[in-house]
Amino acid sequence: MTRVSFAAGPAGDWMIETIDAVCGQTLAGAPRLARLEGEAFQAPVGSAWVIDGVRSNDRYVERAEKERLVARQAELGRSDSTCGALIPIRKSEAWWRLAQDERRAIFEDRSRHIAIGLEYLPAVARRLYHCRDLGSEWDFLTWFEYAEADRAAFDALVARLRETEEWRYVEREVDIRVISARARTD
Amino acid sequence: MTRVSFAAGPAGDWMIETIDAVCGQTLAGAPRLARLEGEAFQAPVGSAWVIDGVRSNDRYVERAEKERLVARQAELGRSDSTCGALIPIRKSEAWWRLAQDERRAIFEDRSRHIAIGLEYLPAVARRLYHCRDLGSEWDFLTWFEYAEADRAAFDALVARLRETEEWRYVEREVDIRVISARARTD
Repeated sequence: MTRVSFAAGPAGDWMIETIDAVCGQTLAGAPRLARLEGEAFQAPVGSAWVIDGVRSNDRYVERAEKERLVARQAELGRSDSTCGALIPIRKSEAWWRLAQDERRAIFEDRSRHIAIGLEYLPAVARRLYHCRDLGSEWDFLTWFEYAEADRAAFDALVARLRETEEWRYVEREVDIRVISARARTD
Repeated sequence: MTRVSFAAGPAGDWMIETIDAVCGQTLAGAPRLARLEGEAFQAPVGSAWVIDGVRSNDRYVERAEKERLVARQAELGRSDSTCGALIPIRKSEAWWRLAQDERRAIFEDRSRHIAIGLEYLPAVARRLYHCRDLGSEWDFLTWFEYAEADRAAFDALVARLRETEEWRYVEREVDIRVISARARTD
């Protein structure tokens, strides 16, 4: 189980451009964001906030979808991916009380979450982290990386998802946009 | 998210009768087992081992199954439930790499996990805790309570599950049987 911590504060590879509360309470501002993934690390001293998660197993994706995703998706860390976004989300208790088939029906049959995401591959690279079982105030965190030229496409992706039936169950969402600090010092 | 800790050591409401490694490494022996569920607690000093988990959302159960389960299942803590069992399980990486529909097909369509369990309700009360995302060496813990008269039924339940296709993915399982310490001091 690989852990991750996202730490907002004075240090980190990503410069924070904007922090927008899409739904519910926002997060404090800070100059930098660090994505610390792996075995042993310490969150930077003076962090404004730290959110922890884990890479875990798929919850909804079926085999045929997984094969389409794997065939099209890109890795994180591409040199032209100078834009990033961290979107922590918490869903309502009503969502979590649903049975697996009910959540799956909303997630894909009616909201087309996977199908919409596929349209933006490989431009938008994505990694999902879970945190609900950790007792976090968030249920999951999604990290995205894309090129400057794909900013509008990324905006369209998140706008489309936010219009779905699935998103009626989102009770807190913050959209944190960042740009690579390394790119800017080249 | 409600947390639980199972602590084996000198104190606890349950006297440990047997600890059997069904698969993989066993756990150390101890006189008592405590199930500490809720907000704030400390594991007893001198514990031989402590396993943490959380009550979380259903991963496989569909709506119709959930209704059948809710209609038949019993609560924990019945006065005649003087027997208990704690069964921590870890599944293989091959299991966790499967897509959701593949895991569901093995779990219920082919192994009848829910259907078999239903046959033993309400005699065997059951609560599932998840721990995989906590970075535990276990994936989940199941706690069972039943009456002395239902010991053979409980043995049959676990024997049937262990013969299923799903169980081929179990790489570690320990079966800890306990009896109520309160019942024995009445």
